[in-house]
Amino acid sequence: MNHSIRSLGIVGVGLIGGSLALSLKRVMPELKVLGYGRNTTNLDWAKEHGVITDRAAHLTDLGDCDLIVIATPLGAMESVIDELAPHISSHTLLTDVGSAKSAVVEQIKRVAAKHPEADLLDRFVPGHPIAGREKSGAAAAKADLFDAHRVILTPIHENTDAAVKQVADVWELAGATVQNMTPDHHDEVLAATSHLPHLLAYQLVSTLAAMEDKREIFAYAAGGFRDFTRIAASDPVMWRDICLQNRDAILPVLDQYMADLKSMRDTLATANSGERLENVFSAAQAAKKRSDAAK
Amino acid sequence: MNHSIRSLGIVGVGLIGGSLALSLKRVMPELKVLGYGRNTTNLDWAKEHGVITDRAAHLTDLGDCDLIVIATPLGAMESVIDELAPHISSHTLLTDVGSAKSAVVEQIKRVAAKHPEADLLDRFVPGHPIAGREKSGAAAAKADLFDAHRVILTPIHENTDAAVKQVADVWELAGATVQNMTPDHHDEVLAATSHLPHLLAYQLVSTLAAMEDKREIFAYAAGGFRDFTRIAASDPVMWRDICLQNRDAILPVLDQYMADLKSMRDTLATANSGERLENVFSAAQAAKKRSDAAK
Repeated sequence: MNHSIRSLGIVGVGLIGGSLALSLKRVMPELKVLGYGRNTTNLDWAKEHGVITDRAAHLTDLGDCDLIVIATPLGAMESVIDELAPHISSHTLLTDVGSAKSAVVEQIKRVAAKHPEADLLDRFVPGHPIAGREKSGAAAAKADLFDAHRVILTPIHENTDAAVKQVADVWELAGATVQNMTPDHHDEVLAATSHLPHLLAYQLVSTLAAMEDKREIFAYAAGGFRDFTRIAASDPVMWRDICLQNRDAILPVLDQYMADLKSMRDTLATANSGERLENVFSAAQAAKKRSDAAK
Repeated sequence: MNHSIRSLGIVGVGLIGGSLALSLKRVMPELKVLGYGRNTTNLDWAKEHGVITDRAAHLTDLGDCDLIVIATPLGAMESVIDELAPHISSHTLLTDVGSAKSAVVEQIKRVAAKHPEADLLDRFVPGHPIAGREKSGAAAAKADLFDAHRVILTPIHENTDAAVKQVADVWELAGATVQNMTPDHHDEVLAATSHLPHLLAYQLVSTLAAMEDKREIFAYAAGGFRDFTRIAASDPVMWRDICLQNRDAILPVLDQYMADLKSMRDTLATANSGERLENVFSAAQAAKKRSDAAK
């Protein structure tokens, strides 16, 4: 096991950043974690509860850490990297945890072009842990959040092998299984498995909330609907940014879904549609069972 | 508390019928439960594990029970009532647990017209427990399934007050809170809160399964998608019948949802759509919070 980082800088000490700190401290109790964020109440909480070792007064104070993890909403990331770039020590590696990787790679490249002396392309290894909860903030952080979960790294062509390996090592120390893929491939897979379901859930809750004056919809949120409302409790700003920054991958799968749903709607409206409906439902159930069996 | 039923006949000893038997036995240990169903392996399991007291060899053997609960899929209900009707003792009450009440009321009325001597309209009190799990069969039954859950009764105009009260009493003994409403109102509320979410989830799993050859969709079923696959594991035959029998209430809310989703899709495809997306997401999150606070 590689214990080579001794200090971790976290920008945005929320669910993901905080959980990374807690999970690493299980195996590296001496790790120094410096946290920075705009929500000072949240930072104070994180310090008091041992999620971080210290609060950084300024973003640029993180520049000496062995690894800087940028865990802000996607929309804030470029300005963070831009502000940090002139202050990053030569030994420092960087990564992020954003849910849309092509957009992040573009941001890194734009900032790298502005600050060539920062060598960002060599050592900023974009990443995305496939783990989450609906709760947010440092108080939602858990030491076991990444255990048995996947982290996808989408290395930039210019990344050094050593940088990619070391970021992967840190995530494995945090309990995760690391996998590399291209940013585009990541974005397609996540658009389908995460971003589309969130959009559908948000829209369902929103549609039903608009009907609520005449029907006691939310009082009967047993079964199906409860799962949707749980998803829709997620952070709106984070999801706004994800949708905007992964728009190009989300639109095609959303369009496919809408076409399929229209087709199911027309089937339902047709007489004698029982067999066709049952086939769709059985195929879905079978896919779910195959997926469970493969785990 | 009213302990006036001494025998319970269950047609379809699955999750709901089996859970009703187990929940009532908590407060009425002497209750005799006679079970009938087409799946003899399931019935044997139920008898061996004390879910039912005895297996009925024939459906008509249930005719002497104080209360008969019809817990078959909706598509099988009319033929069950039709076969039972000539064999029901004068003291027997009936109810069902179907998820689409207008259709059930129509079935009861059709059978009642064929068998006027059975007095079905007086004593068949349609009902629907708002509780469920994805698992099915007697082995999925749980004594606490209905605790703190709602049961909706949709009494027929001709039901005697005594019959409605006694069916309600039985469900309250089973741990549930009972509420009466009209069949149409029930069907509208359930179309929105249960049937539509199941359709959306089935369709999502089905759409993504069709893409799976090129993307490892199911390997990344963390977060959003996992909630959908759980819903889509539900019994396809049961859901086929629910969709067909509640079609008239499902189509309008499905159409509304599809129109809203199209509108969100067009917003997402537009430049500078961040604020509007965030508004939809925030509204959904707020509705979820209001609903949690109201519990």
